[in-house]
Amino acid sequence: MSKNILIVYAHPEPSSVTCQMVEAAADTLEDQGHHVMRSDLYGMKWKAVFDADDFPERANSERLSFVGESAHAYATGNQSSDVIAEQEKLKRADAVLLLFPLWWFGVPAILKGWIERVYAFGFGYGFKDGTNQHRYGEGLLKGKRALVCVMTGGPEADYGPRGINGPIEELLFPLTHGALFYPGMDVLPTHTVYGAAHFKTQMEVDQAKTVWCDRVNGLFTDTPIAYRRQNSGDYNGRQTLNAHLAPGQKGLSIHVAQ
Amino acid sequence: MSKNILIVYAHPEPSSVTCQMVEAAADTLEDQGHHVMRSDLYGMKWKAVFDADDFPERANSERLSFVGESAHAYATGNQSSDVIAEQEKLKRADAVLLLFPLWWFGVPAILKGWIERVYAFGFGYGFKDGTNQHRYGEGLLKGKRALVCVMTGGPEADYGPRGINGPIEELLFPLTHGALFYPGMDVLPTHTVYGAAHFKTQMEVDQAKTVWCDRVNGLFTDTPIAYRRQNSGDYNGRQTLNAHLAPGQKGLSIHVAQ
Repeated sequence: MSKNILIVYAHPEPSSVTCQMVEAAADTLEDQGHHVMRSDLYGMKWKAVFDADDFPERANSERLSFVGESAHAYATGNQSSDVIAEQEKLKRADAVLLLFPLWWFGVPAILKGWIERVYAFGFGYGFKDGTNQHRYGEGLLKGKRALVCVMTGGPEADYGPRGINGPIEELLFPLTHGALFYPGMDVLPTHTVYGAAHFKTQMEVDQAKTVWCDRVNGLFTDTPIAYRRQNSGDYNGRQTLNAHLAPGQKGLSIHVAQ
Repeated sequence: MSKNILIVYAHPEPSSVTCQMVEAAADTLEDQGHHVMRSDLYGMKWKAVFDADDFPERANSERLSFVGESAHAYATGNQSSDVIAEQEKLKRADAVLLLFPLWWFGVPAILKGWIERVYAFGFGYGFKDGTNQHRYGEGLLKGKRALVCVMTGGPEADYGPRGINGPIEELLFPLTHGALFYPGMDVLPTHTVYGAAHFKTQMEVDQAKTVWCDRVNGLFTDTPIAYRRQNSGDYNGRQTLNAHLAPGQKGLSIHVAQ
């Protein structure tokens, strides 16, 4: 069955590994009869900075509260047109792919600004009733799938379980758990292309594409990360993991059920 | 002895909790005879997006490589003037304070873009010989201190050791370990103002300021986070934590010596 897939990516160089992986994924999905939408953040000259210009009709013209103005703009239909367009793409999408180079152990600023601006109050958070009751596994984006493909400059060992940079899945936890699972998406394990800055030949890129396209083929069938749902009963007061789960442990990894 | 302190902050509203904390810190430091420099990223209309415009004189005009062009621009003195100004401030600083609201579990895009653009190859990474040999405890910014003050919307329990969002120090590990300790700074434990979005009275803000100013008073005397230095011998091949340290453990927390 034909699905809608949104690919959001952040690299301005068409021949970069990032952009080549975007093309490979789009080809793979279109060959299967799916419909691919793109958000080429550099190409679109995406406005990265979330600021007062995002709120042309202010609820409070005296003091800028981002949460308050975001809620007001979303509820009253006074968002900027670029934000509305991205929200519509997200709503249409059955799956979202995010591709970017890892810069200083996180997403590039332009992609961070996409999340900040598109995830309005009422859309990305404060879903349904303006509280935190419907998050982490529930939200407007529930039922959609998400898959991250990240290019690193450094080698795999640096990002291993005991690697000096920290494990890649923990460095990206604010994205996968915090920005994708939070509004309800099922998030697949991150696909990492290590050492992409040091590829010397097109053959190396092509090999990386092949491995990546295998992951793209599993977009609707692979098992998502078993992040614990807020309303599953695992959390005391929807805040703290119950003591009998991952007993004695702490840190990011306890939010993945074993 | 009078010191130079750089305060980098990211909120456009002068009456925001972030900006009030900036003023409180600046007053505290100036009262002690220190010299305070400010980088008001919103006020400066800081260019958040790292792109081809950062490299007016390209080493390779055909294909944009950020690492290659950054190295070339830094080495040949062809950086943009805003980037040079921030690098000079950083070099002059004995300590750096970063203040921002936590947006989607990380720094606002405008601050992420400050790191991406200011941390040129040769300045923020690739120090000395263009390799990774002088990082995590060594680098151009060695000997300086860093202190992060983050405002969250949500309550402390959500960010606790077993809190649903993940512990605040692990969410910010890409900043504290990855962007501050990496080029050599001694990083103090993060100061978090929880629930800042829900402060109802100026008294609540003032109480938070008092607690924060106590931390500012310890800027040059408090004990930094005991991040392990890459070249301390703790890491095998400068990549993987040796097996006898934090034995059997993995994840971000093993990079802090107990």
